Amino acid sequence: MRVIGLDPGLRQTGWGVIEADGSRLGHVANGVVRSDATLDLAGRLVQLKRGIEAVFAEFLPEQAAVEETLANQNPGSTLKLGMARGVALLVPALADIPVAEYLPMIVKKSVVGTGHAKKDQVEMMVARLLPGCAIAAPDAADALAVAICHAHVAATGAAWSRGRTDPLARRSATRPAARPTVRRAAP
Amino acid sequence: MRVIGLDPGLRQTGWGVIEADGSRLGHVANGVVRSDATLDLAGRLVQLKRGIEAVFAEFLPEQAAVEETLANQNPGSTLKLGMARGVALLVPALADIPVAEYLPMIVKKSVVGTGHAKKDQVEMMVARLLPGCAIAAPDAADALAVAICHAHVAATGAAWSRGRTDPLARRSATRPAARPTVRRAAP
Repeated sequence: MRVIGLDPGLRQTGWGVIEADGSRLGHVANGVVRSDATLDLAGRLVQLKRGIEAVFAEFLPEQAAVEETLANQNPGSTLKLGMARGVALLVPALADIPVAEYLPMIVKKSVVGTGHAKKDQVEMMVARLLPGCAIAAPDAADALAVAICHAHVAATGAAWSRGRTDPLARRSATRPAARPTVRRAAP
Repeated sequence: MRVIGLDPGLRQTGWGVIEADGSRLGHVANGVVRSDATLDLAGRLVQLKRGIEAVFAEFLPEQAAVEETLANQNPGSTLKLGMARGVALLVPALADIPVAEYLPMIVKKSVVGTGHAKKDQVEMMVARLLPGCAIAAPDAADALAVAICHAHVAATGAAWSRGRTDPLARRSATRPAARPTVRRAAP
């Protein structure tokens, strides 16, 4: 199973593609799609969409997982984050590729073992789980972590990811959008 | 000049198409594009995108104007609003149609004469400015108001819209995203 992880942001969206065979993982590629801050919003969204589509066209993922980035304290930044996440959800959905969303703490729990892991711990574990991968940027490491999280859930049906045993997940399970279920585009 | 106005929302996005010849305005059509709340986010964004694209394909607007809806107090709602506004900006930009954005108070100022007009005053003025138009829904009236605002700015080069004379606009002009300049997609 080939999985793409996406860490959405208007300025820069991280992406990471892995190959998952049960619990065995392999690195395929990672990087970031940038938008030109001198363009207007509409133009930047078009850049993100075309950039992410190019990654999909090159690496042909079968499943997608998006980091369900939490709202920023600044409402203006939250709006922009929503736009970028919308594009990250749209691209796979338009191509009929299932899209899952995972909260950051679920990703950290899956990759590092604790929902409160720090950014450099996540990057270190990503490098350990995907030997030989050269990480292009911190956002790309986060995207690989989301892909790894999705592969874990798919391989193990991880109970904690559905809020059965883990208090972190239980808390997130009260928000419908936080459930890491596989999401499909409208028929 | 045929202008489409869009009032974005995840549950329901209003749209209104007008024909503008200088200061003379004519109604073409209005309505709403709804998304199915039982679908996941990705599926709903696909529905919005396809629905708005269908309106563009039917009424062939040459310019688009989007209401720059302000952030909600609820960060989760703000994220969803960002996603819907992203789709409303993407559809024209992908079709190489210029997109402008206008703050709600600029739209009200343009249509009613005051930036603090109430919703029913806006709807009444829209009906007066576009005689014979049947308004499909309140969100569609807001969308027609955005289109009218854009036509006014195009016809008069309205100084207040650029923050030269109007204190409301001056305030908004300090935020680059609030300027009602014509926005084009990336080349």
